[in-house]
Amino acid sequence: MRIVRVRHQGESRYGLLGGARVELCRGTPFSDLTRTGDVLCRPPLLAPLTPGKMVAVWRNSRALVVASKARETIDLCYVLKPPSSFIGPDATIVLPPAASRVIFEGELGMVVGRRCKAVSEAHAPSFILGWTIVNEVTASDIIQREPDFPQYTRAKSFDTFGVFGPVVDTDFAPHSAVIRTRQNGELRQEFAVGDLVRGPYRILSELSHDMTLEPGDVIACGSSLGVQPIAAGDVIEIEITGLGVLRNPVASL
Amino acid sequence: MRIVRVRHQGESRYGLLGGARVELCRGTPFSDLTRTGDVLCRPPLLAPLTPGKMVAVWRNSRALVVASKARETIDLCYVLKPPSSFIGPDATIVLPPAASRVIFEGELGMVVGRRCKAVSEAHAPSFILGWTIVNEVTASDIIQREPDFPQYTRAKSFDTFGVFGPVVDTDFAPHSAVIRTRQNGELRQEFAVGDLVRGPYRILSELSHDMTLEPGDVIACGSSLGVQPIAAGDVIEIEITGLGVLRNPVASL
Repeated sequence: MRIVRVRHQGESRYGLLGGARVELCRGTPFSDLTRTGDVLCRPPLLAPLTPGKMVAVWRNSRALVVASKARETIDLCYVLKPPSSFIGPDATIVLPPAASRVIFEGELGMVVGRRCKAVSEAHAPSFILGWTIVNEVTASDIIQREPDFPQYTRAKSFDTFGVFGPVVDTDFAPHSAVIRTRQNGELRQEFAVGDLVRGPYRILSELSHDMTLEPGDVIACGSSLGVQPIAAGDVIEIEITGLGVLRNPVASL
Repeated sequence: MRIVRVRHQGESRYGLLGGARVELCRGTPFSDLTRTGDVLCRPPLLAPLTPGKMVAVWRNSRALVVASKARETIDLCYVLKPPSSFIGPDATIVLPPAASRVIFEGELGMVVGRRCKAVSEAHAPSFILGWTIVNEVTASDIIQREPDFPQYTRAKSFDTFGVFGPVVDTDFAPHSAVIRTRQNGELRQEFAVGDLVRGPYRILSELSHDMTLEPGDVIACGSSLGVQPIAAGDVIEIEITGLGVLRNPVASL
């Protein structure tokens, strides 16, 4: 199933995407999602879910570790992005006046399907609803602006910086997938899920030992080399083979 | 009004606290909160709201700045705590196995009443629903455990680490209030809201320039000197004059 969300008759509704058609549903992806029989053709898509939290994993690419002469972290390192930052496909990424350098980060997004706490890596798959694409936008110049306090949270929390969609695919097999980011059509990032230091199931397991994960929570599994500053007028497209393309324009406030 | 939340007949319901009595309400604190006429006597209280996000302000006490020979930050520095960390009065703070040093932090909590973005300090008061008490629990040993990445988010995001309540007081005047934290009856923290580097209205204004604040969001305005490690069996009480006492026991997992 390829789950989407649309606005229909003034309400947000879940649907199932097939080609250009969306079959409207009642219920939610977490309980009794059922086709109503209504079909829309090429409707604008919202972010496919309204997560309670988005977790962004830090430094989780082998290529990035090697290129930055760093080492792999022992702990799972992460930051939270707030619900107020979430937007979906085709929505505009807005550059905040406070930042002078904002970057895209193409990432695989893992969507939690059932409440889980302290699950093992082996049991992780049964707690996953499906997979999506994340543009984990970051105001990189802000991070080190205060000498005593790295502002990762603020840098990643501006409105429109938590981009995901267009679908949550429940049948997708992530482990051989490749993530490609294009900026105005030019290829900027190309990396395999297999190059992640921690794979998705390990991330879910370790994270669930820290905090309860709730249905709809999104975990952005980390980006790799090739991130670039974005500017007003840009179009950023993140493609994951088999999952689709997350496309967003960029504008100034 | 002193807004609380209780479980009644299997559902969570808002109510208004007067002495030991809770008058049950329909609606929400953000739209048409209306007494139903039902009254409960000394019911267990839940966290008074279910916020979409909690923002914890970092280093915002003049006494702390002086004592640590630091300087005041130019930017408003903060971290997010996830909804999965929220608990209310009398609920147990659980020490996670991953941490060896967990501290309490007594703080004033500001509760957002209306959606706001980029509001001025002068207009801030009209966007505030009321005030609460926050115990901004932190696993302090985790923060500096990775040499390349300070884990503020993880340290503050464990389940049960976002403690607030017992009420949201809509009539409270915060600016002359004093915050006192007691550990097993012993006074550990005592500081005035007037000693905060940034007062609540300035925090709301600056934060709202970064991100949209939604009804129910809680902003923990920062702690001061005197934080201490907590241990299983402890009872932590945070008192704010005029607002009440937030009391929580501590246990190991």
